[in-house]
Amino acid sequence: MASFTSLSEFADILAAQPGPDAEAIAAAPARNGQLTKPPGALGRLEELSIWMAGWAGTEKPALDAPQVLVFAGNHGVAAKGVSAFPPEVTAQMVFNFEAGGAAINQLSNAFGAKLHVTALDLDAPTADFTEEPAMSEAACVAALAAGWDAVDPEVDMLETGEMGIGNTPAAAAIASALYGGDFVGRGTGVDDAGRKIKQDVVAKGLARHLPASPLEVLARLGGREIAAMAGAIAAARHHSVPVMLDGFICCSAAAVLSEAQRGALDHCVAGHMSAEGAHAMMLEKIGKEPLLNLGLRLGEGAGAALARGSMKGALACHSGMATFAEAGVSEG
Amino acid sequence: MASFTSLSEFADILAAQPGPDAEAIAAAPARNGQLTKPPGALGRLEELSIWMAGWAGTEKPALDAPQVLVFAGNHGVAAKGVSAFPPEVTAQMVFNFEAGGAAINQLSNAFGAKLHVTALDLDAPTADFTEEPAMSEAACVAALAAGWDAVDPEVDMLETGEMGIGNTPAAAAIASALYGGDFVGRGTGVDDAGRKIKQDVVAKGLARHLPASPLEVLARLGGREIAAMAGAIAAARHHSVPVMLDGFICCSAAAVLSEAQRGALDHCVAGHMSAEGAHAMMLEKIGKEPLLNLGLRLGEGAGAALARGSMKGALACHSGMATFAEAGVSEG
Repeated sequence: MASFTSLSEFADILAAQPGPDAEAIAAAPARNGQLTKPPGALGRLEELSIWMAGWAGTEKPALDAPQVLVFAGNHGVAAKGVSAFPPEVTAQMVFNFEAGGAAINQLSNAFGAKLHVTALDLDAPTADFTEEPAMSEAACVAALAAGWDAVDPEVDMLETGEMGIGNTPAAAAIASALYGGDFVGRGTGVDDAGRKIKQDVVAKGLARHLPASPLEVLARLGGREIAAMAGAIAAARHHSVPVMLDGFICCSAAAVLSEAQRGALDHCVAGHMSAEGAHAMMLEKIGKEPLLNLGLRLGEGAGAALARGSMKGALACHSGMATFAEAGVSEG
Repeated sequence: MASFTSLSEFADILAAQPGPDAEAIAAAPARNGQLTKPPGALGRLEELSIWMAGWAGTEKPALDAPQVLVFAGNHGVAAKGVSAFPPEVTAQMVFNFEAGGAAINQLSNAFGAKLHVTALDLDAPTADFTEEPAMSEAACVAALAAGWDAVDPEVDMLETGEMGIGNTPAAAAIASALYGGDFVGRGTGVDDAGRKIKQDVVAKGLARHLPASPLEVLARLGGREIAAMAGAIAAARHHSVPVMLDGFICCSAAAVLSEAQRGALDHCVAGHMSAEGAHAMMLEKIGKEPLLNLGLRLGEGAGAALARGSMKGALACHSGMATFAEAGVSEG
């Protein structure tokens, strides 16, 4: 269970997180070099396997029991016309998740992941951040804790996703607050006028709430589902569970952690590059190279779930292949 | 069973291959537009699902029974020092495939594919194409037929891969013969001097054997495993089985078909972009955009097997998601 009761205590936890297993991360490259393939022929899969060895704490990691967490939240700024969809769609999609009808349900089923959906006070949207802080410190801490507590410490990989009408301007505001620059895109499909509204909303939010520390940025400009993802990503690190990041909104949560504490995302890999325009900038800022680039812009953890296939393939090769000596194959 | 006995009869078969199912390919986009997601939010997955619907002949295609075919062959040009590995590694790797120790074994097991390995006269390498045609017409036809006959008509997707020390110069020679330009790369890891040797070998082969029709190029410059992949890809089309293409060598086989008959690769998707330098050029020539770009340069069908995960995810979403009406979600 989450043990923090303030943003300051959460920051202290981030500062004292565990690193990868030194022994496993040293043993894995030696094994990789002996497998029956030309050196480097599995490309990025080799790097992923070695990275996973460190977090799994074993030279031969597996990926058999992943967890997908989807957090849903509603946003005060949704009333400003920042989305192509009405705010009630957040709750409707939570029913769809629970009934098994959404994309993330199919992707979880297809690849054997355990999906858990958490609806966060959907009847009480966060405040409109152009007028006041989106969340009080207490509300933000509660959302961080909800995310933290949703993580199953026994899983071998975590993926976090979200649903929240109006959360692309919140994520864009967070990114601009942390890094400067314009992170406003088209979200679920607004036109040029909609994009302009989003840019104005973000500019007003920044003018009202900056300067602020990274965790204050999360509270003032973010949303409950964004804070919950940040809490879940931090909890995964606490339990030495590696994380596959999803798209633009998920990465805005990750970016808060990264700016609050250097190295806070060392246990994370970027699942994909979203078609949401600013995601490429965001990935560059958090220093992550995406595994997939298939034009997804859905959220829900869909890109991360899809990317899990590549990770699973990487580990199957690394942990299952014969060595040159075992197979009697001549080395080059 | 293969019914052709000459390259000319094979060309006639290519000219009379079936197209996609018109009814399914018309129904699939309508279904896609009703699924509970913003329009286009699944990016390339949507396009893949619609494409698969056409070849599967159903509005809701699945990917439950894929087949991986790996063909192995030896090359006369291997004696010229064009590989970082000695020629006996081809046979050693076939034993490794049969014992379950190679990368493609792990990738087939991890994602539930049926793997079939065919060793093609390993004790009789093709002739050195700098001196004479690599294969006689009869030998090339036999290899095409071996590939054709290896395809199980009941599978829902085919992936073709290969193993053959010395086959990157053969593939590069095929590509240069078909398209012009330099397709020589580093293969399994030769240095600059090795690359120069490969370039000289390819130049000699082109000088000796051109002009030639695409199928004559295959016979004179290719190899048995390359011809077998071409035969398998053509057989898949005959059975309306879609194909996931692998890397540089596999695409050289596909390129022969594409140049022999316009549209011969309409049932194929490119699984990945290889780290073998010229693969990007090759993909552009055959008009295919790769699904993955993870720096693999192994062959064996490994990249195609890995890409199958994305295809499976695409179809799971397309065929399993609820529509807006079914889920009671408001459309934007």
